[in-house]
Amino acid sequence: MEAIENKYKERDYEVHIRFPEFTCLCPMTSQPDFAEIIINYVPNELLIELKSLKFYLNSFRDKGIFHEEAVNRILNDFVEKVQPKRVEVTGNFNVRGGIYTTVKASYPG
Amino acid sequence: MEAIENKYKERDYEVHIRFPEFTCLCPMTSQPDFAEIIINYVPNELLIELKSLKFYLNSFRDKGIFHEEAVNRILNDFVEKVQPKRVEVTGNFNVRGGIYTTVKASYPG
Amino acid sequence: MEAIENKYKERDYEVHIRFPEFTCLCPMTSQPDFAEIIINYVPNELLIELKSLKFYLNSFRDKGIFHEEAVNRILNDFVEKVQPKRVEVTGNFNVRGGIYTTVKASYPG
Amino acid sequence: MEAIENKYKERDYEVHIRFPEFTCLCPMTSQPDFAEIIINYVPNELLIELKSLKFYLNSFRDKGIFHEEAVNRILNDFVEKVQPKRVEVTGNFNVRGGIYTTVKASYPG
Amino acid sequence: MEAIENKYKERDYEVHIRFPEFTCLCPMTSQPDFAEIIINYVPNELLIELKSLKFYLNSFRDKGIFHEEAVNRILNDFVEKVQPKRVEVTGNFNVRGGIYTTVKASYPG
Amino acid sequence: MEAIENKYKERDYEVHIRFPEFTCLCPMTSQPDFAEIIINYVPNELLIELKSLKFYLNSFRDKGIFHEEAVNRILNDFVEKVQPKRVEVTGNFNVRGGIYTTVKASYPG
Amino acid sequence: MEAIENKYKERDYEVHIRFPEFTCLCPMTSQPDFAEIIINYVPNELLIELKSLKFYLNSFRDKGIFHEEAVNRILNDFVEKVQPKRVEVTGNFNVRGGIYTTVKASYPG
Amino acid sequence: MEAIENKYKERDYEVHIRFPEFTCLCPMTSQPDFAEIIINYVPNELLIELKSLKFYLNSFRDKGIFHEEAVNRILNDFVEKVQPKRVEVTGNFNVRGGIYTTVKASYPG
Amino acid sequence: MEAIENKYKERDYEVHIRFPEFTCLCPMTSQPDFAEIIINYVPNELLIELKSLKFYLNSFRDKGIFHEEAVNRILNDFVEKVQPKRVEVTGNFNVRGGIYTTVKASYPG
Amino acid sequence: MEAIENKYKERDYEVHIRFPEFTCLCPMTSQPDFAEIIINYVPNELLIELKSLKFYLNSFRDKGIFHEEAVNRILNDFVEKVQPKRVEVTGNFNVRGGIYTTVKASYPG
Repeated sequence: MEAIENKYKERDYEVHIRFPEFTCLCPMTSQPDFAEIIINYVPNELLIELKSLKFYLNSFRDKGIFHEEAVNRILNDFVEKVQPKRVEVTGNFNVRGGIYTTVKASYPG
Repeated sequence: MEAIENKYKERDYEVHIRFPEFTCLCPMTSQPDFAEIIINYVPNELLIELKSLKFYLNSFRDKGIFHEEAVNRILNDFVEKVQPKRVEVTGNFNVRGGIYTTVKASYPG
Repeated sequence: MEAIENKYKERDYEVHIRFPEFTCLCPMTSQPDFAEIIINYVPNELLIELKSLKFYLNSFRDKGIFHEEAVNRILNDFVEKVQPKRVEVTGNFNVRGGIYTTVKASYPG
Repeated sequence: MEAIENKYKERDYEVHIRFPEFTCLCPMTSQPDFAEIIINYVPNELLIELKSLKFYLNSFRDKGIFHEEAVNRILNDFVEKVQPKRVEVTGNFNVRGGIYTTVKASYPG
Repeated sequence: MEAIENKYKERDYEVHIRFPEFTCLCPMTSQPDFAEIIINYVPNELLIELKSLKFYLNSFRDKGIFHEEAVNRILNDFVEKVQPKRVEVTGNFNVRGGIYTTVKASYPG
Repeated sequence: MEAIENKYKERDYEVHIRFPEFTCLCPMTSQPDFAEIIINYVPNELLIELKSLKFYLNSFRDKGIFHEEAVNRILNDFVEKVQPKRVEVTGNFNVRGGIYTTVKASYPG
Repeated sequence: MEAIENKYKERDYEVHIRFPEFTCLCPMTSQPDFAEIIINYVPNELLIELKSLKFYLNSFRDKGIFHEEAVNRILNDFVEKVQPKRVEVTGNFNVRGGIYTTVKASYPG
Repeated sequence: MEAIENKYKERDYEVHIRFPEFTCLCPMTSQPDFAEIIINYVPNELLIELKSLKFYLNSFRDKGIFHEEAVNRILNDFVEKVQPKRVEVTGNFNVRGGIYTTVKASYPG
Repeated sequence: MEAIENKYKERDYEVHIRFPEFTCLCPMTSQPDFAEIIINYVPNELLIELKSLKFYLNSFRDKGIFHEEAVNRILNDFVEKVQPKRVEVTGNFNVRGGIYTTVKASYPG
Repeated sequence: MEAIENKYKERDYEVHIRFPEFTCLCPMTSQPDFAEIIINYVPNELLIELKSLKFYLNSFRDKGIFHEEAVNRILNDFVEKVQPKRVEVTGNFNVRGGIYTTVKASYPG
């Protein structure tokens, strides 16, 4: 994940990002999980560069990770790299074992 | 139902779980009942482990239990095991005798 | 209508009941009327037993009764038997003479 | 069920009738059943008079009768009274014990 | 109902007319009936003039007439006045006594 | 319009009435107008009797009256006869000359 | 635009008018523009007469006028003629050069 | 209406044109009529030039013309100018006097 | 599964049955599977009795059985008990491991 | 972008503009990006002239520019030229690399 300069930092504005192609592995069965990741943020000095965000999100493809952990880690990494005024990350995970799960976390908490 | 560590406990975030394949038995006729169970919670120190939740919900398959009791028992067991900051449990039960029933309970009450 | 013990009386929770097969007779023409009856309540010491509710609602099948009276009588009988913390009864009646009617009453008033 | 004269008998035309308020009793439990009855016919010398059809269909209200028998009996009675060129009767019955049933019969067979 | 010249009589083309504001009286109770009348035709030497059609259809407002008769009479009058190559008339009547009726007739039969 | 006794006058409850078959005449052209009339009220000592309401609304069939006047007159007549705690009358009129009109009036004003 | 007497001036009530067939000319290209005009008002002593409103709105058919000006002029003319308690005029203009425009103005401002 | 060369004349392909902003005048009342005109054709040696088509269709703005005549005249003019392999013209006219009219004509007939 | 007499055996007619609450066990994991079972048949001398059908379908609740086997066994048992002129059985199984499965079998083959 | 005089400057009213055909180039790959641009503003002394707005928005076609920068530059240019009382600019960008992005900025901030 790389950041680029926000040329309009004196203004509060909103960026909404939706990525329906997130996949990782279940840490217990190593089977693939699928989710839609949604990131809404108000930038400060920096913007997320979208191509690097895609590569970052695709890097989860071979990781074994719980749903809740994936969403929180994306949030933490995003906050560290982009230092936004505020950001909310949501993961809508596909059904597994008959269970549908959504996880939503935001910064500042 | 087993809990796992919430690695992001310093943050308030929401987990939404939907399980459309709940089934138990009517305590009066021993005939099967069917429902969709929805659990929304904000974790504290612990997360529900989803596979164990599935086994827990499937353990009602051979129990005779009223609709209201099923929803409240799931809520109590969830609170005891996961000790969330807050949680709401909803059961949407399939039609029986022409009657559709929904039960909704939350903690703290 | 029979009540059963509410084992979770220390908790305020909601029960939503929908019965699309209500029928009674028009007190003026003796012709059948049809309605969907919806009961939303928060139990106190008691729960409505659903099979007895079905028999109770089916007992209107041969009664001549106005729409407004049917809804209020169901509310009164429910309050008397179940003594809920609160309850709302709605009747959506099928068209008669080109007129569609909905009646909604609640306790406490 | 009463028939009236078809003043346009030299012409083949279609009459489609839908009655969503059919109710009878289950012959095994005496509990009410509900259905939508659909009658499509091409008249010959006679038309069904609609008010008498309503009274005829309402006459099933207190009869114990199986779904298949109800549809076939309506078909037989309609054919006997109205002697149409052709007619199809369909009954869409409400769910009972988790089962949804539709019965469709036509004349000539 | 008045006809005007069809200036394009050498060509077969379709005119589709929908009139949702048809009303007449029930011949048995003198109460109002309501319907949507649909006329689809292929003109020959003549076209129906739309304002006169509106007046013609509104002339049923105070007539007591059965559903089947209304549709067939409109068809006959249309055929007599406009002499189309072919025409189909449909009447979708509002619910009466819980019964929904549609009548469809066409020329040539 | 006739009123009947409200047996549950100690309770504030809502009655919602919808009549999609209202028709009157335009006072300027004498052509038919069509509307859906909606009446929502909270009864006091009296209820509107629905069959008499149907006859009342049908009595506009041959009257020449403006849209705004029709809605206000229905409101006035309803208030005079039924003396409700509150009532709102809405008329959704069909398009005329390309114009769609809705009029809404309530008591107390 | 002509006004008629409001016979129910002691009551505040709402009239909603929608006219989807507004057309004028672009003042720069003289090409036709199309819009839906919506007028919501609470009458005072006067009502707008609908047929005259139609003629008034149709009088823009050959005028070259900007979108913003059309909506404001309709508002001004309406206020001058009808002197309502309050009124809002909206114009939803069809796409031009790939641009969709809506203009909304109200009185009192 | 002007035509341009079809560079792919050896291939049968379809062009679908929809123009929702057609307006003309009623020949009996001189009031505006509105319609959506749809032209579907398979070109031969020529294509319709779209800007000229717009000017052509806008040229009806001040003409008094019946619905059926407008559609047939557009068809004739199109056939004469573009000489397509086949073409169908449809006019969906806005409601007038409660009547919705659609006219559809095609070449070759 | 029990059969009852078909009183209208001289007529070919259709019975359509839908049961959305079918559940059995996966023979490999012993975890619950869920499906909607649809049975369409033309009766001969016998009809399926619906309550016994419900008990029969519920008897799969504790059986370990593959999707394809379940549908074929229902078909075989139905054919043996009811001996219909023809019958088709469909099973729409809930998603497992991201896979949705439908099995359809009929008699005569 | 050019401004024209607002003849109704004494009144606060809203203008809503939607342009679904915005395209620019990705500054990193030089590939085309597509967006819908929405501008909502309350004019002061000036109005945006729509044709010049179209030319202005089309001038981005060959520019390499990030999503966030495009929206903010449009906002800045609009504020400079039109000096509105308030304005909000939104860009809904088409999916790129599986990512959907929306940017929203307003003045005063």
